[in-house]
Amino acid sequence: MHVVVNAATSADGKLSSRRREQIAISGPEDFERVDALRADCDAVMVGVGTVFADDPHLTLDDPDRVADRENGGEPPHPARVVADSRARTPPDARVLDDAATTYLLVGEAAPRERVGALKDAGARVVVAGAERTDLEGALAELESRDIERLMVEGGGELIFSLLEAGLVDELSVFVGPKVIGGREAPTLADGEGFVEGFPELSLEGVERLDEGVLLRWRV
Amino acid sequence: MHVVVNAATSADGKLSSRRREQIAISGPEDFERVDALRADCDAVMVGVGTVFADDPHLTLDDPDRVADRENGGEPPHPARVVADSRARTPPDARVLDDAATTYLLVGEAAPRERVGALKDAGARVVVAGAERTDLEGALAELESRDIERLMVEGGGELIFSLLEAGLVDELSVFVGPKVIGGREAPTLADGEGFVEGFPELSLEGVERLDEGVLLRWRV
Repeated sequence: MHVVVNAATSADGKLSSRRREQIAISGPEDFERVDALRADCDAVMVGVGTVFADDPHLTLDDPDRVADRENGGEPPHPARVVADSRARTPPDARVLDDAATTYLLVGEAAPRERVGALKDAGARVVVAGAERTDLEGALAELESRDIERLMVEGGGELIFSLLEAGLVDELSVFVGPKVIGGREAPTLADGEGFVEGFPELSLEGVERLDEGVLLRWRV
Repeated sequence: MHVVVNAATSADGKLSSRRREQIAISGPEDFERVDALRADCDAVMVGVGTVFADDPHLTLDDPDRVADRENGGEPPHPARVVADSRARTPPDARVLDDAATTYLLVGEAAPRERVGALKDAGARVVVAGAERTDLEGALAELESRDIERLMVEGGGELIFSLLEAGLVDELSVFVGPKVIGGREAPTLADGEGFVEGFPELSLEGVERLDEGVLLRWRV
């Protein structure tokens, strides 16, 4: 499986404000690029924190891209994936509507009744790991369901966990013309953080886009 | 006064790890650039947290730059400035050696005995503000002492405070090929963070340097 992390940050590395409210960081050129990248992937993944904060839909915007996928024999939209150890996704979350297939990656300790309610809401549940989702196992399970190219859109906790597990191949970061600030604001990679063995990147591309810059790193 | 913030961050916007240990983020080209920028400024400023974490010297590395300044009738090194509301700088900190003039910006509530000890250690003390240093007042006082061009090297608390007070003119960020991660690791702009009225930047320059990229923003 090939895993691409894609995110937009402020010039100081934040994904949103300390209130976790979405901030317009990028612009139309970057939206277009992100939509094209989604269309090129088999699935789009977020953490449950992002579902709570933004209630994203994670589908394609451009109807031409939907048509292209359908003409190629693919589902109209990529599958959606939520890393959700304890099955906390609200059953009425937009990622659970019937626009696309949705996988929830939960741990064995996730409460049965919540898992049941989410299955009833249409989710396909992948169980991997005990308390926390075992991301390596869960991604292997997704791969067995023909998800070869996975795009990860955040948040910072999931991105850190994937980097820690050595599962990320590429990191695309749009850096926008704003400062958000805040020692408690979410950043591109949160979690516990590394104190040694920092993942090394190689800068594959630098491109001015909208009023900011897109940095493409290989991990 | 013209204020330039200069810093090196990981690809995820961190200045160092959650242990506040210095991490090699940039390389020789960026060190050279930073030394040239220092030589071109009248003073180099840090917050007291950076003094505790790194005990920096803040002087020029290149003896040719020292000689050029002296030939131009300037002091060999730029002055050093520490934003230190409560006068917590250790009297044996490297910024207090006699290589250059050092200003400590303290609040009125700073304990007298500590201020006295720091004066004895050679610091020039600027009092502005009550509990916390009033940065606008303190910078005006520095300007009256012929500091026209001020470079700020961190940390994230000071950079946020300066941005919040509207005192920053330029922001130069070297983004390096590493991930540090950590929801508690220091970032380029910490503090409380903005929730509205985010400072808007304009991207003046993008340059590949060492294994990363230098982004120059105008505030």
